[in-house]
Amino acid sequence: MKRNLLVDASRTAADIDALAAITEPDRPYTRRAFTPLFLEGRRYLEDRFRSAGLETRIDGSGNLIGRRAGTEPGRGTLMLGSHSDTVPEGGRFDGIAGVVAALEVARTIADRGITLSHDLEIVDFLAEEVSIFGVSCIGSRGMAGVMPPEWLGRQAGDLSLEEGLVMVGGDPSVSAARTDIRAFLELHIEQGPVLEEARLDIGVVTAIAGITRIEVIVSGRADHAGTTPMTGRLDALSAAARLVLAIERLGKELAATPGHFAATVGEFEIEPNAANVVPSRVRMLLDVRAELREDLDCFHALLAKAIEEVKRETGAAIAAPKVLSDNPATPMHSLAINALEAACHATGASHRRMASGAGHDAAFMARICPAGMVFIPCAGGRSHAPKEWADNADITLGAAVLLDAILRLDDE
Amino acid sequence: MKRNLLVDASRTAADIDALAAITEPDRPYTRRAFTPLFLEGRRYLEDRFRSAGLETRIDGSGNLIGRRAGTEPGRGTLMLGSHSDTVPEGGRFDGIAGVVAALEVARTIADRGITLSHDLEIVDFLAEEVSIFGVSCIGSRGMAGVMPPEWLGRQAGDLSLEEGLVMVGGDPSVSAARTDIRAFLELHIEQGPVLEEARLDIGVVTAIAGITRIEVIVSGRADHAGTTPMTGRLDALSAAARLVLAIERLGKELAATPGHFAATVGEFEIEPNAANVVPSRVRMLLDVRAELREDLDCFHALLAKAIEEVKRETGAAIAAPKVLSDNPATPMHSLAINALEAACHATGASHRRMASGAGHDAAFMARICPAGMVFIPCAGGRSHAPKEWADNADITLGAAVLLDAILRLDDE
Ligand SMILES: NC(=O)NCCC(=O)O
Ligand SMILES: NC(=O)NCCC(=O)O
Repeated sequence: MKRNLLVDASRTAADIDALAAITEPDRPYTRRAFTPLFLEGRRYLEDRFRSAGLETRIDGSGNLIGRRAGTEPGRGTLMLGSHSDTVPEGGRFDGIAGVVAALEVARTIADRGITLSHDLEIVDFLAEEVSIFGVSCIGSRGMAGVMPPEWLGRQAGDLSLEEGLVMVGGDPSVSAARTDIRAFLELHIEQGPVLEEARLDIGVVTAIAGITRIEVIVSGRADHAGTTPMTGRLDALSAAARLVLAIERLGKELAATPGHFAATVGEFEIEPNAANVVPSRVRMLLDVRAELREDLDCFHALLAKAIEEVKRETGAAIAAPKVLSDNPATPMHSLAINALEAACHATGASHRRMASGAGHDAAFMARICPAGMVFIPCAGGRSHAPKEWADNADITLGAAVLLDAILRLDDE
Repeated sequence: MKRNLLVDASRTAADIDALAAITEPDRPYTRRAFTPLFLEGRRYLEDRFRSAGLETRIDGSGNLIGRRAGTEPGRGTLMLGSHSDTVPEGGRFDGIAGVVAALEVARTIADRGITLSHDLEIVDFLAEEVSIFGVSCIGSRGMAGVMPPEWLGRQAGDLSLEEGLVMVGGDPSVSAARTDIRAFLELHIEQGPVLEEARLDIGVVTAIAGITRIEVIVSGRADHAGTTPMTGRLDALSAAARLVLAIERLGKELAATPGHFAATVGEFEIEPNAANVVPSRVRMLLDVRAELREDLDCFHALLAKAIEEVKRETGAAIAAPKVLSDNPATPMHSLAINALEAACHATGASHRRMASGAGHDAAFMARICPAGMVFIPCAGGRSHAPKEWADNADITLGAAVLLDAILRLDDE
């Protein structure tokens, strides 16, 4: 039996539905940052924040913040939140569930007359998803003080990111960097199938896996597909296919050892891509997620070996893999993990520890404060798609866990 | 020692160089059918045809024809030729070598006062390569009477094929179909490495392989690349990679049995092709060349088995392969093969029989008359590329073989 949770399921459901209605009508659910629909979603949220008795503002990096003052000025801020922007044709819950749960916590605190010694802030981070400017986590990078200044010059059509920040109410001339935050908690849908398959309510996140992007170019020789004997070819696609299977094999091997690991060939293009020409070149982009640095190191070494093997087997030329970006894993803070686990016990939420394979705003918040995350189950692990689904009961229970954890952190 | 060949190597070299100069200057060697450069090439050829004492005309299907009357009216026509159009950034020899060799035969016959009982015609077929109208072998299809009438409505920008035919001097209202041709011979570069590797002068073509295009669609499930465990995935790229390797294996097996066979995955596209999404769909287009129908039947059966195996191994859905086009193999006529082999012996040209893996105008001519082809070596088997190369000595020897074969056919 779950304990009396204080939070109100009808309110979280109403908020999720209200935000879902703010979408490109023929491409549900699309509410990309910096668009008029995004600003409409923000107006809804700001109104709800105010109704919860929160004082609202937009910080320099365009984050929407609702604030409730604590009883002991100077103790610092406890912060909860996530993001309300979506990918194109994304889902109703990715980011949104976390903003709504944070709002419900603030509402419950107000309704029940709960006092906190810390200030409480809830936040809708700007542009967590890859935005029209080609970059992600703009708001949380800004709050962590690590957004590269040159990003302000990035263009999306005629609009610069600098102008985009002003458009959403931010101020590029004002740093959003914070030093007063004592803890940050984020609720998010898991975006994977683990909790649903294990029939668990909550995943307490131990670390956010690193994201490494690696480009591999395979070069063969363009030949006439009709006349070139099967045995004398240098078919880049054939060599690349071997490498795809080797990468999958390595991914499975490393996933079977402790620590989250995944390796995916997400982009794959062949040249000249003509019916009657033997493929001469393949470009592939690998997405590697590693909770443990040693898994990533091991992957690099095994990938190099696999490439040598494919070169030997096929005669194709394969350039040394090029690391395009490499963000290390971010451990969540024990303070947050402990508070969240205690909250799960208190609320009766079944739970396990797990790593996040996906990147989140919490990874940037972890740079400036003890940060933690909870995952709630989502149907079939589907995400970034219109059929993404999370049960309202799980969102509400997650909000109750956040509330309980916040009360514990307030006592620290 | 090669015999006295009568033909003149300096003239073939001059023609090849002259046509190579008629190209888009910054994209050698580009002289696509229906373009101003193509018409410039045609003017050069028409001038050369006339200088060889030939009477020139353009038939209904836009083929440039040079004619020399025989001594016995009514015996019919012996025809030689190929095509002068190129693919974009194609080579100096694909098609052109055959037109120049035919011209050199006609020149030699005129110079040496050789009399033929048959009429002799040399032809530059219109648009053998895939043209701006998206279709190939327009002229030879027309001469064989098998160009689909609806093709006249095909558009390239504002131009219809009907208008294109008029532009090159053809007449869409006049059938180019012929019933008077007693034999057709075409010289072409091999476009493969076999003759060069075997150090042979000539390939006597036994058959032009069939061309079958097969579309295969592999469907998996788009999943978040970061969060979806390696073991629960339905990665369409992984399934497709297995199929690519299976197809290559089948191709090699069938190539090792008698009869030319090649199978190539020339087109390969993945969806959504996004760095952090497990690929959900792959479309591949297979190009299959079979000299023997039973090899093609066998390939279809083995492909179906390979698909079942990949489906079982991966759980991916793979639709039944869709045959987009299926042109059967075309045997060359024994009359032509025998004449060409005898000509090789007579001229001292080292030679072997071989199938053509590539399609040619001769495949359409074979529908209306005994047809034959000779291949000459080309460097490294390269074709459809600027570095395509054939030695002038080989072109000249090939022309001598054609001349000798024509004299034999004239005696039949
Ligand atoms: N949570 C989430 O989907 N983040 C997007 C970046 C990534 O992890 O691929
Ligand atoms: N000879 C030649 O390259 N023909 C083009 C059609 C083909 O065989 O792919």
